[in-house]
Amino acid sequence: MILFSAKPEAWAEWEAPLRAAFAEEGIDVPLAPEGDPAEVEWILYAPNGPLRDFSPYVNLKGVQNLWAGVEAAVGNETLTAPLARMVDPGMTEGMVEWVVGHVMRHHLGMDADICRNDGQWVRHVAPLARERRVTMLGLGELGSACAQALASLNFDVTGWSRTEKRIDGIATEHEVAGLERALRGAEIVVLLLPLTEATRDLMDAERLGWLPRGAVIVNPGRGPLIDDDALIAALDSGQVAHATLDVFRTEPLPEGHPFWAHPGVTVTPHIASETRPVTASHVAAANLARAMRGEAMHHLVDRARGY
Amino acid sequence: MILFSAKPEAWAEWEAPLRAAFAEEGIDVPLAPEGDPAEVEWILYAPNGPLRDFSPYVNLKGVQNLWAGVEAAVGNETLTAPLARMVDPGMTEGMVEWVVGHVMRHHLGMDADICRNDGQWVRHVAPLARERRVTMLGLGELGSACAQALASLNFDVTGWSRTEKRIDGIATEHEVAGLERALRGAEIVVLLLPLTEATRDLMDAERLGWLPRGAVIVNPGRGPLIDDDALIAALDSGQVAHATLDVFRTEPLPEGHPFWAHPGVTVTPHIASETRPVTASHVAAANLARAMRGEAMHHLVDRARGY
Repeated sequence: MILFSAKPEAWAEWEAPLRAAFAEEGIDVPLAPEGDPAEVEWILYAPNGPLRDFSPYVNLKGVQNLWAGVEAAVGNETLTAPLARMVDPGMTEGMVEWVVGHVMRHHLGMDADICRNDGQWVRHVAPLARERRVTMLGLGELGSACAQALASLNFDVTGWSRTEKRIDGIATEHEVAGLERALRGAEIVVLLLPLTEATRDLMDAERLGWLPRGAVIVNPGRGPLIDDDALIAALDSGQVAHATLDVFRTEPLPEGHPFWAHPGVTVTPHIASETRPVTASHVAAANLARAMRGEAMHHLVDRARGY
Repeated sequence: MILFSAKPEAWAEWEAPLRAAFAEEGIDVPLAPEGDPAEVEWILYAPNGPLRDFSPYVNLKGVQNLWAGVEAAVGNETLTAPLARMVDPGMTEGMVEWVVGHVMRHHLGMDADICRNDGQWVRHVAPLARERRVTMLGLGELGSACAQALASLNFDVTGWSRTEKRIDGIATEHEVAGLERALRGAEIVVLLLPLTEATRDLMDAERLGWLPRGAVIVNPGRGPLIDDDALIAALDSGQVAHATLDVFRTEPLPEGHPFWAHPGVTVTPHIASETRPVTASHVAAANLARAMRGEAMHHLVDRARGY
């Protein structure tokens, strides 16, 4: 059987799109939100559900993560079956929209108008996007889609990834030497890296200091990519002009956390994007159908790399 | 000679790019911000300068407007020479960026996060842009560029113009019957029409009533396209959820005008876009060079149509 393992309330939202997608792929293996572990061959897995111990699933052949981020699953030593990341076109579209929206907001200096009602006519015409340097940290599915959308809107985009990548229309950098160049040129920097031991606290006091004074940070990736205390110090000193943060070390962000009240921080409540059941069900069904035919699943996690 | 007619302070910003562009086009006619009217053959015209009476310019061959809007020049009965609108790629780019930014802002519901610092984690995931219906009123240079940019970002875009137009990837409507269809389907409506007798007060109480309840209006076009009192009534009743207005009947918008304090209105101080001297100087020089070779200028105003 195929086990749907997530928070109990998720089943109502996922059951119909999953059954429809499985029917289209010709999958007739039973699908249910619970069942005898010994009969489970495949798991559709949301890491915020109750399942932590995979050891009773002795006949497990593969796990399809329902989210893009796999840091909660990849460190689980009881999970030894192949694990596939979710690359959901609906999630990618939503992320592109959120990133384009918030980069445009900072590019245009919108907040001054949105929050102003004092009757003061203070003109501030933005430079053109072609004069605005944006750096994208992370060039995976989400980062590269966002970088390309920003380049299509004429932004001067530089992308950075740990290993070398080439993307049409975007300057790319890699490794630590490239990170310094990418950050020194960034008026707006967007973080869309996976969370691994190599990326945790990537934006520490030193790297924040590489940004030009007054840069803006947009983080829809993962909270621990940034050292919170170093960020607050950089905001207080004016080194960083603003941070728009969608992800946090603890979520929901606790009431009383300094990010809430800081005038240089916009908190968005982990809404940049999320898996969309209809599009993700098609991806999951196609990937399970591959595995059932004996082919390797797409987007398999490399546990040594961490994603 | 070529007269540069604008506010006196504009000359400092325009002289160098104009001289450079004229040199590139091989124009050796003298250019100056003042001179004997009888010697003036061409005028580069900003309607907010001191020149109102064109009758002393008896040898005038043509006028190149420095702005996109020509409503101030087209009704001037002393101006009988050919009059060309400015179609500046820099202005178009700036307008696309402002429109994309504010449409994304409303699409994503950003204001709730930008203005919130109360420690409340209230998730609100937007639908995808493909599920968001945006109507563009006006399909000229600016309107069609913005409509195409929004369609590239997957928005479900309908464009309306007075006369029939076809644009790849965008549903189009025209005339009054089409206007009703375009407005009834609009969650976000953007106004980029020229101001003429046919478009003045286009968005009156009846047309605002055609919008689905809770629609958002974005107006970077011209203030008098909307009946201000009807808009405020529609905002107060909830028929219109929000209006982001960049243009007004009187500019600067007077202190104390109800738009300033209305929670449903964002005032931006006529910054959506402006003519950029470098790019516009190239356009003006190329257009004057055409006229000097005896060819018709591009973007000539049809005085009967009003633009």
